[in-house]
Amino acid sequence: MNKFPILEIFGPTIQGEGMVVGRKTMFVRTAGCDFSCAWCDSAFTWDGSAKEEVRRMTAEDIIAELQETGGDKYDHVTISGGNPALLKNLQELIEPLHEKNIEVALETQGSRWQEWFLDIDDLTISPKPPSSKMTTNWDILDDIIQKQQTNGRLSHTSLKVVIFNDEDLHYAEKVHKRYANIPFFLQVGNDDLEEDQPAELATNLLTKYEWLIDKVMESSALNHVRVLPQVHALLWGNKRGV
Amino acid sequence: MNKFPILEIFGPTIQGEGMVVGRKTMFVRTAGCDFSCAWCDSAFTWDGSAKEEVRRMTAEDIIAELQETGGDKYDHVTISGGNPALLKNLQELIEPLHEKNIEVALETQGSRWQEWFLDIDDLTISPKPPSSKMTTNWDILDDIIQKQQTNGRLSHTSLKVVIFNDEDLHYAEKVHKRYANIPFFLQVGNDDLEEDQPAELATNLLTKYEWLIDKVMESSALNHVRVLPQVHALLWGNKRGV
Ligand code: SF4
Ligand code: SF4
Repeated sequence: MNKFPILEIFGPTIQGEGMVVGRKTMFVRTAGCDFSCAWCDSAFTWDGSAKEEVRRMTAEDIIAELQETGGDKYDHVTISGGNPALLKNLQELIEPLHEKNIEVALETQGSRWQEWFLDIDDLTISPKPPSSKMTTNWDILDDIIQKQQTNGRLSHTSLKVVIFNDEDLHYAEKVHKRYANIPFFLQVGNDDLEEDQPAELATNLLTKYEWLIDKVMESSALNHVRVLPQVHALLWGNKRGV
Repeated sequence: MNKFPILEIFGPTIQGEGMVVGRKTMFVRTAGCDFSCAWCDSAFTWDGSAKEEVRRMTAEDIIAELQETGGDKYDHVTISGGNPALLKNLQELIEPLHEKNIEVALETQGSRWQEWFLDIDDLTISPKPPSSKMTTNWDILDDIIQKQQTNGRLSHTSLKVVIFNDEDLHYAEKVHKRYANIPFFLQVGNDDLEEDQPAELATNLLTKYEWLIDKVMESSALNHVRVLPQVHALLWGNKRGV
């Protein structure tokens, strides 16, 4: 069996973002990312700062720890990163979870395809806007979206773009136009990663969220969309493991 | 053409609750309710306090006003109340909206069935828990859920229960068990309807939301659920028309 690099296993808690926002879920966070977004809120997964915490675990190990931590209080697991799409063979984890009637969600920036994407119940592709300083490879993104579509997986797929400024919003319009039939989520960015007072952060995030809503309401190119905050950041600020 | 009692038409704004939380939408609020929930946040729709504002409008009138207010900046309309399920013939509004490729959402407490439920894209049935002081008619609710199911409408249907206390949570467990295959949303109640400082209200609501999350995380009867705040109340407090 393969060993996967795992940084955190925690929950149950709620999913704070995207297509299943509010869903009761367990989290499995994988280490490693092929990007280095300027505002990454999980930089510890790839910048070496948490490398002592990375454990090499088989799917069996992961499921045992999920069981131990979550008991009988979950039926949904979210795999996040880093970029979990770097991992080949993740079907070794997904399949036994499905056999236990546990649903599996996953988020990735869309820089790489894996065959096991087709088995994910809630797949969020989150291409990174200009403020991230990263560049989108449209050929790869086209290919991922097309494979999801060809295999009848659109109802299990969504796009999400995090927005920090007007340029990002313009990028979001472009993404939405290109993949008009994919459920599309806009999320307000959090650039207050140093703020350690959750109440202060919540006020700032709500102000930014209102700004984003105003912008989206004005844009006739962004009608068929959903605009969300990061609910967990409103609740718990920048704390890890919640 | 029939005339419908309309209290408010506004938007575009975001849907703050439930199955399409965050969705860019227009709102049409109908007057009249067969319930009188203790904590109703739209009591002006039925308690007589806004009766001068009620206008009798045909579907054509409503669509003209949506057009005038929302222009080309929406493709989704939410019909709320009061209880819009009191209105026969609402298909007169729904069908022409669909012809314009506009989706239609509707929320009702599940006290009455209408044939046009089958045409609603996002139907939220929100039975009222004990804290409302209302009584659930389970026969009617069973009948509504069964009709949605028989007609293949489950992917367009959700249940939502607003929670103020432990007794409500127990009620929610009962609802979820009875209709286990219907997407189920728990929403934190707002009993601060007099608070006119949005920032104060947001802090209180987040505290209550965290309480609800903790409770749901502890309950193995509430695994396949989503727990959400009222996003619009976090943003804009108790203000009407946003
Ligand atoms: S893709 Fe995600 S995990 Fe990777 S650097 Fe960007 S925000 Fe961070
Ligand atoms: S059913 Fe809804 S509108 Fe009617 S009284 Fe209850 S909360 Fe208010």
